[in-house]
Amino acid sequence: MRIGVDIGGTKTDAVAIDADGGILHQVRLGTGYGADAVLNTAVDAVNRVAALAGIPVREADSVGVGVPGRVDTVHGTVTHAVNLGVQGLDLGDLLSSRLGVHVHIENDVNAAALGVYHLLETEGWPDANDHSMAYLNLGTGLAAGIVVAGGLWRGSRGTAGEIGHIPVDPAGPLCPCGQRGCLELMASGSAITRQWPTDHPMPAQHLFEAAEAGDESAILVRSRLLDNVASAVRVLVLTVDVDLVVIGGGISSLGAPLIDGIRSVLAERATESPFLASLELADRVRLVPGGFPSAAIGAAYAGVRAQGSVTVA
Amino acid sequence: MRIGVDIGGTKTDAVAIDADGGILHQVRLGTGYGADAVLNTAVDAVNRVAALAGIPVREADSVGVGVPGRVDTVHGTVTHAVNLGVQGLDLGDLLSSRLGVHVHIENDVNAAALGVYHLLETEGWPDANDHSMAYLNLGTGLAAGIVVAGGLWRGSRGTAGEIGHIPVDPAGPLCPCGQRGCLELMASGSAITRQWPTDHPMPAQHLFEAAEAGDESAILVRSRLLDNVASAVRVLVLTVDVDLVVIGGGISSLGAPLIDGIRSVLAERATESPFLASLELADRVRLVPGGFPSAAIGAAYAGVRAQGSVTVA
Repeated sequence: MRIGVDIGGTKTDAVAIDADGGILHQVRLGTGYGADAVLNTAVDAVNRVAALAGIPVREADSVGVGVPGRVDTVHGTVTHAVNLGVQGLDLGDLLSSRLGVHVHIENDVNAAALGVYHLLETEGWPDANDHSMAYLNLGTGLAAGIVVAGGLWRGSRGTAGEIGHIPVDPAGPLCPCGQRGCLELMASGSAITRQWPTDHPMPAQHLFEAAEAGDESAILVRSRLLDNVASAVRVLVLTVDVDLVVIGGGISSLGAPLIDGIRSVLAERATESPFLASLELADRVRLVPGGFPSAAIGAAYAGVRAQGSVTVA
Repeated sequence: MRIGVDIGGTKTDAVAIDADGGILHQVRLGTGYGADAVLNTAVDAVNRVAALAGIPVREADSVGVGVPGRVDTVHGTVTHAVNLGVQGLDLGDLLSSRLGVHVHIENDVNAAALGVYHLLETEGWPDANDHSMAYLNLGTGLAAGIVVAGGLWRGSRGTAGEIGHIPVDPAGPLCPCGQRGCLELMASGSAITRQWPTDHPMPAQHLFEAAEAGDESAILVRSRLLDNVASAVRVLVLTVDVDLVVIGGGISSLGAPLIDGIRSVLAERATESPFLASLELADRVRLVPGGFPSAAIGAAYAGVRAQGSVTVA
């Protein structure tokens, strides 16, 4: 049995999975705010899911945690997890000592990428070493996790997949990162709340409903979102040439209106560019199935998957 | 001894290299136009360089050829090599039968990426399996070759590194690919000749001289070039997070004015963005040393380098 935890801005999910990755037990707790709350909630979630399985935590084959912010996977530290109220935390060491077992810490988007890759494997996706996949997270921000040859490609400093801060419009608005016209400014949860302020608990849902009802401003914001998600897919394929781009994160719960909209943009662009048409982007994009706990499942595998290999020449 | 050939639009270079990759002999011939000319020149170049080495071609440890256009490395075919006048050619089979030895065919940018990676290795670059590098080719077009864990990352359909067709300006000019505002339209040899028409045999050199002399239109075109090469570097780091981006291709013969200009843009952007500053892009970009036959040397290794591996988790 492996245990994986996904620490989110509001909820913390924990899963216990069997040898095939099937979910045995699942727990959801409120995360709380600040280092102590985050730590206590994670400990609580791991203990509860182990108790449900009737196994002491120390007997789990692995325990991993996915967390937002900048993560040093070697030292298990987290910094700049703004939504959690965590500036810096030795999360790995603290959890390991509280739980009596080594705990691997992974960035939440990368953990989700591993979880989605695992799902593709169980669906019979070939485990060939020349296969690759990107998980595109549409949450508060926009970022991707890249899986190459069965393992995470983190890059030289852990910034692989930070495509939300690729500028795509010199006339675009200023980004908090200091650049102008970043992808994230048009295709993310924060992009929606900035352009379409609402008290609705699910702003993306509300936006799409208003657009469907004919609100012109909503149609514009929705169209910017779909356009720029499509551009994010294009960036991932033209750079890494991943087989698949699988979209997840809070906004992905929109379901069909989101994926259909993205595919429409990609298909329309293909009619104007034989080059783009040859890439068949609309066929290479998918949604994470609703309710699938990608990051928690991926966290359970983080740090324990065997070394993969790429065919080189 | 290995033999590598680089078939360019005007010249075909062949090298014979020793076990350490040192150049033993080098031959340069005019390429000619059309399938027959390209094929005959490549055969001639291989035979001549083998003759210089005093070894029959069939005794070479490997023979590889880098060629522009769309290359199927498995079947050794080349299509859409427009500058060579080649629409489609079974280059691998034809060369193999003419030379009596298996000949591996590789895209020229990917071959150059392998050649540059080899150069970095001889300079003591760590052969760690979590290292990666991009070769950014500024030729007629703009494209990159990506080396991960010591081997080429071609992607699922061989389009990895085709970043020249990432649009970065919705208000930019129309690209022959059918999209608008592609990177290649601003940062390539064709971008210079379109924006700065000249009879000078080296348009990039001429452009930089005119800009240095104060010509305002030249300053504008030069600044667009440097800006967009810097953007190409940013795309490669924010997506793959390569350790290094090494710049080559015809325009790289500009030398210091090019690399200094690119570093200036990257350094200036870093002053406006703490996020970009943390990536230290200006320190991660280099030029291929002048006269280094990257593609010919890389072609000699193409198809023969041992399988590499990436650390995964």
